[in-house]
Amino acid sequence: MFAVKEGALPHLIELLLPDTLPHSMSGPLEFDIIHQCGESKARLGVVRTLHGSFETPAFMPVGTAGTVKGLTPDQVRSTGSEIILNNAYHLLLRPGDEAIARHGGVHEFMRWDGPILTDSGGYQAYSMADINAVDEDGVTFRSFIDGAMIHLGPERSIEIQNNLGADIIMAFDDCPPSVDPSTLNESRRRLAEKRMGPFKKGYDHAKRLAEAHDRTVRWLDRCMDAHARTDEQALFGIVQGGIDLDLRRASVEAICSVDLPGYAIGGVAVGEGPELIRTVVEFTAPLLPEEKPRYLMGVGYERDIVAAVRAGVDMFDCVLPTRNGRNGQAFTQSGRLHMRNAKFADDGAEIEPGCDCPACSGGFSRAYLRHLFAAGEMLGPTLLSMHNIRHFQRLMLDIRRSIRENDWSLLLGAWPVLRCDGSDREG
Amino acid sequence: MFAVKEGALPHLIELLLPDTLPHSMSGPLEFDIIHQCGESKARLGVVRTLHGSFETPAFMPVGTAGTVKGLTPDQVRSTGSEIILNNAYHLLLRPGDEAIARHGGVHEFMRWDGPILTDSGGYQAYSMADINAVDEDGVTFRSFIDGAMIHLGPERSIEIQNNLGADIIMAFDDCPPSVDPSTLNESRRRLAEKRMGPFKKGYDHAKRLAEAHDRTVRWLDRCMDAHARTDEQALFGIVQGGIDLDLRRASVEAICSVDLPGYAIGGVAVGEGPELIRTVVEFTAPLLPEEKPRYLMGVGYERDIVAAVRAGVDMFDCVLPTRNGRNGQAFTQSGRLHMRNAKFADDGAEIEPGCDCPACSGGFSRAYLRHLFAAGEMLGPTLLSMHNIRHFQRLMLDIRRSIRENDWSLLLGAWPVLRCDGSDREG
Repeated sequence: MFAVKEGALPHLIELLLPDTLPHSMSGPLEFDIIHQCGESKARLGVVRTLHGSFETPAFMPVGTAGTVKGLTPDQVRSTGSEIILNNAYHLLLRPGDEAIARHGGVHEFMRWDGPILTDSGGYQAYSMADINAVDEDGVTFRSFIDGAMIHLGPERSIEIQNNLGADIIMAFDDCPPSVDPSTLNESRRRLAEKRMGPFKKGYDHAKRLAEAHDRTVRWLDRCMDAHARTDEQALFGIVQGGIDLDLRRASVEAICSVDLPGYAIGGVAVGEGPELIRTVVEFTAPLLPEEKPRYLMGVGYERDIVAAVRAGVDMFDCVLPTRNGRNGQAFTQSGRLHMRNAKFADDGAEIEPGCDCPACSGGFSRAYLRHLFAAGEMLGPTLLSMHNIRHFQRLMLDIRRSIRENDWSLLLGAWPVLRCDGSDREG
Repeated sequence: MFAVKEGALPHLIELLLPDTLPHSMSGPLEFDIIHQCGESKARLGVVRTLHGSFETPAFMPVGTAGTVKGLTPDQVRSTGSEIILNNAYHLLLRPGDEAIARHGGVHEFMRWDGPILTDSGGYQAYSMADINAVDEDGVTFRSFIDGAMIHLGPERSIEIQNNLGADIIMAFDDCPPSVDPSTLNESRRRLAEKRMGPFKKGYDHAKRLAEAHDRTVRWLDRCMDAHARTDEQALFGIVQGGIDLDLRRASVEAICSVDLPGYAIGGVAVGEGPELIRTVVEFTAPLLPEEKPRYLMGVGYERDIVAAVRAGVDMFDCVLPTRNGRNGQAFTQSGRLHMRNAKFADDGAEIEPGCDCPACSGGFSRAYLRHLFAAGEMLGPTLLSMHNIRHFQRLMLDIRRSIRENDWSLLLGAWPVLRCDGSDREG
């Protein structure tokens, strides 16, 4: 179904480099840097897990509730995705982590035999639920399914992730707003509140950040103590600190003083603008241990990913390709297209001519996509999700080629969307 | 993705029988009877069209709006389906038959390169829309999309179907209720009204049937005159007559006096019970020309299909596998299962152990299906639609084997659902 087109970078790393040939693993995760870019802090690498390896920089599609929405695992593979992300929060609430454990873990449950990463559930508990209490033991929130009160803390989060059995699991951290709400304009404030819940009167941002920092460090110890499957699952720590660079540095020092298989940058893209995302990532990524994979959580648009890769980030996840795909929005190298737009009614071209995704290479036209979305047909979201995930995987292929060749000019030439200044060209 | 299991009948007809080898077509459709069952009126055959051939008896999944809901064409093929059905009524309203013609026809539009059959749009115009007028020129109804008044008559129906470009197209017929509403009990009457619209006071069923009969014969002539693509598209006539066997015989005589590439039995399974369906089909099918394919429209459950095949029917279509699949209902050889049922929450078995559909052979468990339906995930309808279509294709494989071997005992042994007496065993 998926054919690599001429010009796209073939997956040759494993064939070309003897030191990356399969061998028995010495732990739950191994990371080799294959090539260090001569022109930026970007690196080309490979991560190995017990469920297979993936090339870095890597993009992980999001399979929230144990399914990348609308796609079979075969269809996810056909986009070139090598690792996916599941949300512990959703799987905890339904069908429950113990039910999944009884089925042999989430790989077996959803029939994805490649690497999986689960988040800790903390971010969703903060951002999606009515929070009744946050204290030193964690978060108590109301289930959106049956109204039951659920407690999530470091021990329970790790227990859930042990039950799910993903290859990479995340520390349970305290997630404060990244930006002082009093400094936000109205629209950004609304966005931040939508994601993080309403800000209380008398909220002291500096105090909240400091508290979250200290607590996240204490919780990391508790996560490590609770982790019962250290031979099979790699626990990543998460650096917080919002947009306060001193606090980011302190967080890196505290979190990275614990020897872990990988580290993540959290609390980014939670309401602040693209310039601040970039500033924080460019400051923080190079501080993380060089020999460990670096994961930037929940980011993002194409230019955010490229900037982060150039700062030394190795792993990304984002709901954009699937969420926007379900809403009829197509990512292309020149910007986004709204497939519901009437102007596509007679457009016989593929979503993006030259794209090698299953939808474009399968010959489905913009007119057909527009019809499917107009008629509310499930196949629209399915085809567009495949296209959009493949879009991000093609970006990663071209990024990896740029690193290997120490030349980013081809990337900028082939991806006009990277040259847009914050406002994507939309169709 | 789809592997034929041991015991399933391979598609060997084309290999074994020299007279079915590909050759240039003498018209839009050819039909060869390969084997006549020695124990019933059933026949094994092959229909050839310009978009390829399909074995008969054949089951056609329904792709109403130019998509078998939730499935890519590859996924439809993976169920073993060789021909699909599209609804002219839906495609006329959206995106419009002319728009599809501009895209090269419905095969190209939906990227299904195998045989396609379109219905005339008449049945849906009668059953789904507010009918404002039925007269000698056709039906005028209100579009459910934009409220526009639409006229559909023999000429326009054929024009639409010429524009869509399916391999088999259907005559535009007058569709009266098949049963006198005054003889129906309350629940069947409601069902019939739901399908055919409310019955008017003073409704004279015998008169309405006679009128529809005469009109359908007149309209067939007009359809033939309007048909502009006789070299590419085979026009089938439709026999009506409700449950009045004399009228059925008269309809057969009138319709089949016109030389057409195939004939259909219409007005069945529109509110009457399974016994009446069987009576009408067993009476009507053998009256149709032996050397032409016989198509029973909109039927049905497994036992209805087997009874009709034994009466000499060659083609079937039904929304059951996809519609019920979207609602969480799985067809199995022993009856239907409701995948939302809590009892499946810890059931690690496939939907139907031994089934070779993409969902069962892919190892997706009942517990996972139950989770997907509970969480409202699109993948549930997708997997269950594939299973259910494959269920009907497996039935057709076993039916064709029974015909070839003149032995139906194996079929009845392997398909307990065929022995159920009207009330399927449900999970």
